[in-house]
Formats: sequence, C-alpha cells, structure tokens
Amino acid sequence: MLPISMSPPSPHHQQRRIVHQTQSALLCQLLGMNCATPTDFNFSFSGFCRRGGETDIHQDGWGIVIYENGSLRQFHDAEPASTSLLADFVCRLPIRTLNMMSHIRFATVGEVNLSNVHPFRREMWGIDFCFAHNGEVPLFDQCPNHCLTSLLQDDDEGLENVYYYNPVGTTDSEATFCAILNALRQKFDKVPSVPVLYDSMQKLCDEIVDSDREGTILNFLLTCGSHTLWVYSWPGSRPGSKVWNGLHYTTREYPFHSHHLCDVDITVDFSTRTSKEDCVSVIATKPLTDDEEWTELERGELVLFDRGRPQRSVVDLFQVDIDGHGLQSNVVEKSSIEDDMKTYNIDPSTFQGACI
Amino acid sequence: MLPISMSPPSPHHQQRRIVHQTQSALLCQLLGMNCATPTDFNFSFSGFCRRGGETDIHQDGWGIVIYENGSLRQFHDAEPASTSLLADFVCRLPIRTLNMMSHIRFATVGEVNLSNVHPFRREMWGIDFCFAHNGEVPLFDQCPNHCLTSLLQDDDEGLENVYYYNPVGTTDSEATFCAILNALRQKFDKVPSVPVLYDSMQKLCDEIVDSDREGTILNFLLTCGSHTLWVYSWPGSRPGSKVWNGLHYTTREYPFHSHHLCDVDITVDFSTRTSKEDCVSVIATKPLTDDEEWTELERGELVLFDRGRPQRSVVDLFQVDIDGHGLQSNVVEKSSIEDDMKTYNIDPSTFQGACI
Repeated sequence: MLPISMSPPSPHHQQRRIVHQTQSALLCQLLGMNCATPTDFNFSFSGFCRRGGETDIHQDGWGIVIYENGSLRQFHDAEPASTSLLADFVCRLPIRTLNMMSHIRFATVGEVNLSNVHPFRREMWGIDFCFAHNGEVPLFDQCPNHCLTSLLQDDDEGLENVYYYNPVGTTDSEATFCAILNALRQKFDKVPSVPVLYDSMQKLCDEIVDSDREGTILNFLLTCGSHTLWVYSWPGSRPGSKVWNGLHYTTREYPFHSHHLCDVDITVDFSTRTSKEDCVSVIATKPLTDDEEWTELERGELVLFDRGRPQRSVVDLFQVDIDGHGLQSNVVEKSSIEDDMKTYNIDPSTFQGACI
Repeated sequence: MLPISMSPPSPHHQQRRIVHQTQSALLCQLLGMNCATPTDFNFSFSGFCRRGGETDIHQDGWGIVIYENGSLRQFHDAEPASTSLLADFVCRLPIRTLNMMSHIRFATVGEVNLSNVHPFRREMWGIDFCFAHNGEVPLFDQCPNHCLTSLLQDDDEGLENVYYYNPVGTTDSEATFCAILNALRQKFDKVPSVPVLYDSMQKLCDEIVDSDREGTILNFLLTCGSHTLWVYSWPGSRPGSKVWNGLHYTTREYPFHSHHLCDVDITVDFSTRTSKEDCVSVIATKPLTDDEEWTELERGELVLFDRGRPQRSVVDLFQVDIDGHGLQSNVVEKSSIEDDMKTYNIDPSTFQGACI
C-alpha cells in the first residue's frame, strides 16, 4: 500500500494528559499489523497514538517495533504517545512494513520508565523475538522468575531452573515474555517448524492462564521474524472495572473501501491506494475504525497472522514454514519439516512444488 | 551541563553522500561520553554525525544508546548519519545523560541493514549490555561462533560450547560482543564486582588480539549500566591504508573553556553552561574538536570511565562498585565485595563511610 500523507500535528498536540476518563480501559492497549505487501502504518498508528493520553488514558509510555526490509526497527518513549515528539516523528516516517506491533502503556505494575516500556526484545537462536502485552498476569507478578514446565519431559529434571532470559524492568509482562522464551529454549535443540512452535506456544499460554483463570488477563502480540505475527487472547476486565480487555482484528483486502478512525477525524479511501495483491490485518485492543467489522479473538485463542491473514489450519501453518516465513536462524539447525509432517499426518505432496 | 540550543539543519543537510575521500578512515567510528552530572550530547553528536557521509565516508548506518534516568534509549538507522532525518531529530532531543555511545558505520563485513548497525544490545543477569566496535576481528570474521576460553578453569570442560548469545546480523563486531558475553556468563554464577569484571574483560581482550596481533583492530565501547563506560583500544590501520583507527579521549572539567568542532563550524563556550560539579569525558575514534588536548589510549589498554573520568587504580574500581555504579542486578546475586578486596589485598577501611 502507498504511504498516506499525514496532516501536520493538530493544535491539541501541545496539550498534555488531557484524558476522557469515561473511555478509560485501565490497562495497556495493543496495535499490530500484518501485511501481504509492504504497507505503511501511519493511518492506524495515528489513531492509536491518540489513546495515549488524549482520547484514552494510556499515557505512561509507548513503543513500536517495525520490520523494515527484513530488519527490526524500534522506538520507545516514556512520554504519552499523544504528545510525544518521537511518536509524531514516527507517524510521519515513510516506512513500509510486512509486520509491526505497538503498545501504549497504562502503568499497573512497574514504574513509568523506559525499562518498562513494551515491546520487549530478546535474541534467541540468533533471531530477534519481540513481545507486547495487555493485561495482568498474577503468576509472574507474584513470582517474576516462575518457570513454565508444560513443555518439559519427565526426564528433564533440573531444566526448569535454567534462566536464559531475565527481566530488566519490573513488569509482569516482561517476566511473562522471558518465561515463554526460557521454556521454548529449554525445549528445542533445533529451531522448530511453525506448527510445532504453535503447539508449544498454545501449551505455554494454557499453562499461564490455568494458574489463575479468573485473575489473569493475557492479550499479547509476539514477533520472531519479518513475516509472522503471533496473537493470543485471554480477555477480561480488571476487578471493579467494566472495561473489556480483549483483542479484535479486521482484514482489509480487495476490493478495498474507505475507512474512518474512531479517535481522530481521519478517513482514508484505501481503494485508491491499493492493488489486488495487498492484504492487511490490523489487530487492536479496541477497534480503531468505526465503519468496518472487527472480529474478537476467542478466549484462549492463539492466531498466527502471515501474508495479512490469519492462518488457522495445520496445513496453513506448514505452508507458512515452507514459504520461509517461520523461524530463520543462521546459527541453530532447523528441525526436519518432513518429520514434523509425519507427526501431524500431513502428506508432503499437499504442498505442490515446495522444495522440501 | 545545560542543553545547547542547536541551529536549524544547514543547507547541506539535504545533500546525500558527499564525501571528502582524503579524510576517509575506511572503518567505522565511535563516540562515547561519560559524565559526572546529566549532560546533553548535542555538541559532540552533531560534529560526529557529519562524518557519516559528509566530512567522512561512514555512511552505512549509525546508532546511539543513551542512558536517561537510569534507563536505556536507543536509535538505529541504516541511513547516513549526516542526512538521516532520525539523526537530525536525535541531535535536537533535550536528553541529558551520564553515559552514552554512538557509532557510524563504514561497512567492511556484513550487509548494510539495520541488523548490522551498532550498538548491539543483549540482556545478561537482567542487565542491558551494549557494545559498539571500530575495527576488524579476523578471529570472529572467520568463525563467528568461536568461543573464548581464557576465563575457563581446567575442570570447565564442555562449557566452551554453551552459547547464551548468538549474532542476529553478519558482522564480526556482533560476534565479538556475543563471545565476550558468553565467556562472562559461563564464568560468573554471581554478578562480579567492578575490579573482577575489569580483569576478566582485560583477559578476554588479550585473548582476542593474541589470536592475530597484526590483523586485529579492536576498539570498542561497552556499557552495562547508566554510570560506567568501558573503553578498549587495540589500534591499527587496514592493509594498504595509512588511516589510523585508535581511540582518543578528552576530559572537560572546571574551569571550563570554549571549544570548536573539527567537522562543522560550531563553537560552544562551556564555561557559561557548567558548574564546578560538572565533568565530562568524550571518547572518539578521531578527536572531535581542534582546540583541546586529546589523549590516545595505549595499545591494549582497557579504561573504565565513571563520573566523567578514567578510573585507573584497583582502589578507584572498588570505589566505583561501592558507589553503586557497577553491575546492578535484580535477579542474580552479587559476589561478596569483601572477599574480592581480600583477593586484591585492599583494606576495606580505605573506603571511609562506605557501607560494605
């Protein structure tokens, strides 16, 4: 999609921390975008930033990671997204991406400083993993170095105490991310294929929410490469609040239409800026537009987005891997995709022309 | 020190990749700053950026890490620093810091993309470590996963094959950084004190350059917290080049004077912007100013800067630790500083009033 030329900052850009409490969600908010072709994120990000202190109260910092030509670009700021000079700068960047995520923070756990600003980033197997979270995870709030064990075998005694990754800041979110990575790294000597990684991620998510199904709110976005966006939702409301923290997505594809943002009076006619090859899914805590359908993720659902669309079947997930959109490591050997197909009773000839 | 108000971008800001080959250094360049009080880096960074494609040829990306109120802020760009919109934005940021480093790249090993832009960053013991390098390290260019062994004991067999950290990009620089971190993490179960860390770092640097004393050029800056800047120099010239790649520093303290940048006609009178408590050391591949004395680091010298000054004696290094300026981990226990003092035959009563 073509970049959208943005108007100069509005006068209220200079106003700090003007908050309409009636719209408060009392937790962080997430934005993700996954695309079939390189696409600019200015439209969605501009609306999203307004919620960082202007149309909503998520004013305790913001962050963004953007995959650009296969590499990762990131920005973090402890200022409110609605008034941050850096956010305004990023809104105007002519970057186009296949995959990005952003987070605006309302601090419930951890101080307001850059160490606690999402997305968090760690290298595993020579691959950058990034993670942004909306919610509360009592398991890791109470015990930041709790080890997840659902991927361990009976003879893996002692492995639960191996910490490759530790939080730098003081949020339950970063502790959750580190625990997921520790569990995956303990489990796999070889880089797993996408369906195997999917099942492991689902098990770890189940383990986290099963520890406190009522008290846990776990909505997250995770990236581990320039193509795929992993999205999980265990939604809920904080005690005493009616505000719902879930995850919604919408997929824009040919024929494209015009859409209007909820948080600022901007309309873009995507039909004039797109081609038939374009396809974009936008994922957000609350729908960003008021004139298109958004689907809420089911409770406990893990969805992998690739090429701008949710990929739901095992065959779809193998196709993601075959397309080279899964984990790409230069330093750790990859597991055999043929062996994994046997495990899932998938016939390799399903994938015509694939060099496997 | 007070922020310096910068003039708007000059007309040549719009010109891309204008290079005076006579000043080319044929490798990357480094800039570091370490301060006793929060200080802005605009003066030095503005001159430094000119070398990224304008007054010199280091146009293959640039990066910066800045400690701000104890947290880390970073920016990376694959554009030339002299024309990068992001660099211009960072030049104008009103950030004051105790500790920062920056790097402008002339690609000799690895593609021009964001994955190969310094400084690199990894979390160890819940602490962010950052690293920027000028030079060439044949040891890691030829074998990116080579393990450093000089910290291993005789009974540590097998430990040399533990890889906590792996490069994401394709530079010898990132591989060098990962190998240093792997060696330190294998060595220490508890977070070491500053003098012990210093000795380990020196051994690892010796091991790297001893592998090829003629072919190695290893000038680096390393941070592991908001206070201290680790600086190492093994200087040299590339084959066929007369350009010297070393590291120089200057320390500005009361009474302050006026200084003029080499790369752009900017003069700042620091005596009007400072107090007696201020003290700043600026470290750079080539001196940034033409009217003050710069000292070149000795070959093989490792210098720790804290509170704006080089800290050279073992007592100085213990003082850095006692001041809380060494490694600060929330997740891994710290080694006993009393035991370390015994090892170095240092009398704890040397440090009057210290709660050790």
